[in-house]
Amino acid sequence: MPKSREVHLIQRPTGEPKPEDFALIERDVPDAADGQVLVQNLLMSVDPAMRPRLTAGQALNEAMGGGALGRVVQSKHPDFSVGDLVSNRLGFREYFVSDEKGLSKLTPQPDLPLTVHMHALGGTGFTAYGGILHIGQLKEGEQVFVSTAAGAVGSVAAQIAKIKNCYVVGSTGSDDKVAWLKDEVGLDAVINYKKEPIRKAVEAATPKGIDVYFDNVGGEHLEAALRRMNTLGRIPVCGFISGYNSGHSTVSNLSNIIYSRVMLRGFVATDFLHMRADFERDMAGWLREGKMKYQETVRDGIENAAGALIGLMRGENTGKMLVRLAE
Amino acid sequence: MPKSREVHLIQRPTGEPKPEDFALIERDVPDAADGQVLVQNLLMSVDPAMRPRLTAGQALNEAMGGGALGRVVQSKHPDFSVGDLVSNRLGFREYFVSDEKGLSKLTPQPDLPLTVHMHALGGTGFTAYGGILHIGQLKEGEQVFVSTAAGAVGSVAAQIAKIKNCYVVGSTGSDDKVAWLKDEVGLDAVINYKKEPIRKAVEAATPKGIDVYFDNVGGEHLEAALRRMNTLGRIPVCGFISGYNSGHSTVSNLSNIIYSRVMLRGFVATDFLHMRADFERDMAGWLREGKMKYQETVRDGIENAAGALIGLMRGENTGKMLVRLAE
Repeated sequence: MPKSREVHLIQRPTGEPKPEDFALIERDVPDAADGQVLVQNLLMSVDPAMRPRLTAGQALNEAMGGGALGRVVQSKHPDFSVGDLVSNRLGFREYFVSDEKGLSKLTPQPDLPLTVHMHALGGTGFTAYGGILHIGQLKEGEQVFVSTAAGAVGSVAAQIAKIKNCYVVGSTGSDDKVAWLKDEVGLDAVINYKKEPIRKAVEAATPKGIDVYFDNVGGEHLEAALRRMNTLGRIPVCGFISGYNSGHSTVSNLSNIIYSRVMLRGFVATDFLHMRADFERDMAGWLREGKMKYQETVRDGIENAAGALIGLMRGENTGKMLVRLAE
Repeated sequence: MPKSREVHLIQRPTGEPKPEDFALIERDVPDAADGQVLVQNLLMSVDPAMRPRLTAGQALNEAMGGGALGRVVQSKHPDFSVGDLVSNRLGFREYFVSDEKGLSKLTPQPDLPLTVHMHALGGTGFTAYGGILHIGQLKEGEQVFVSTAAGAVGSVAAQIAKIKNCYVVGSTGSDDKVAWLKDEVGLDAVINYKKEPIRKAVEAATPKGIDVYFDNVGGEHLEAALRRMNTLGRIPVCGFISGYNSGHSTVSNLSNIIYSRVMLRGFVATDFLHMRADFERDMAGWLREGKMKYQETVRDGIENAAGALIGLMRGENTGKMLVRLAE
């Protein structure tokens, strides 16, 4: 019966979350009963989407939730063996007992770092893969524009397009990210949308128009892209960050989809679950070959998990923010 | 060598077109030379899209253009025989000589009135057919909303959905059209958008949401539909009438396409040319069986063609406005 430390939300933050909004609690976790497994979390994800749940959704004085990757350390379930890697939504804790619900087994990739399961080889990578290949119907050599191109999803989408020999333009919001996208990732053009008017910048960067716009932001980015879409262009819509605050996402030139016969389609990763095996094979290969770059910020220990979330809100991370709970 | 009368634009109208903007000219048309055919126009279409061309696009003191249906009366072209029916873009004239360019042979449907080739069995019908079945991926029994449901395209789209056993809601702009859609066409619910706030009316009329919204207008109609779209819904976008005046079509709740994973797609009829034979077979069958209703206003004689266009702008037509140039 292991001791497990877990992070509780003890009061709702007003504005930026502070250390005193959280508490680290130690408790006993029972051994696995019949039909159960005991899981030790190895890595957990720290995501912007966690912030709104602190205000509403996350119960007070309970262990918080969030994406995590664990290892089965006891099994009384026929489908799981000790040593299996399992993704789960029970981050912010070191151990937990579970039946199979909410657990999914990962294909081990012993020659890759475990952390890639949390981004490129995980849910965000799969979202980008299916979003650009299945929803976006990307073809070799096309003209591609990706917004938030340094983000977890955008950076994978942009690199898949490069791997498919496309001309790829990315937009991002800081000079550091511009430099990474240009120098490390090798995009053909990168726009700092905080420094350049997005409409003019997109126009200048896409002399042959846009066949696929992978949209993470909506708003002015989408308007700028709509002006440049080629005939029969596709716009997979992964998110409309620009509208999250207002709850609205106003677009004034949607009529361009008629003249150019453009498709826009909102999607989530469950729309292309049939591609999961292809994704794992392709992505693991690209990672091994060094064709898929990524950035991550890894903090160590459950005692630093709340601080990692606070730090994320302050922009202290470069790339994916992770907490390593055990080796 | 026949005499042909044709309508010329002799001055550009300011505001509503007037009779004195047009002239009826008679001229000799040569016999068909080698590789040519002589065509007698039987019917011509009068369309709202003709109005902007009077301001810019249509040359002065030349025969005007527009969709027409003619019969080959002389042929020195190996692919055409005397008696062949040909659609062409050379309306507003009785006779013309042509090589094969711009002519396409129609499949004769001797048991149907010739006029149906100008709407349900013509380009507008085909646009509706491919738009709702191919772009909209309509399935049996779905929930459907069609804007401008009494129009040439909308009325066919709505009736195809009824034939496919769907629940169909239409919107239109007059009580006469509401009555026709309810009593003759048999839609499940009809909205007069000039009398009811469209958002509330669409909500009330679609208790099971919307799987396919066939969009002809954009703007508030599209916003109202986006609020009601079911998961994996489709929005074939045929036109954005609401934005034609302003050149803009602002939509404020496009983010709904993410939550419901909705597809919007602009299209034109050339996107599904492979469906043409299926369309002709299906539509001719539906027309014969009385399953496809239509309304038309037919004026007689080239001398009334300019008046028909003026009348169209004043709303004097019920359904498709046609001019019969010969039997």
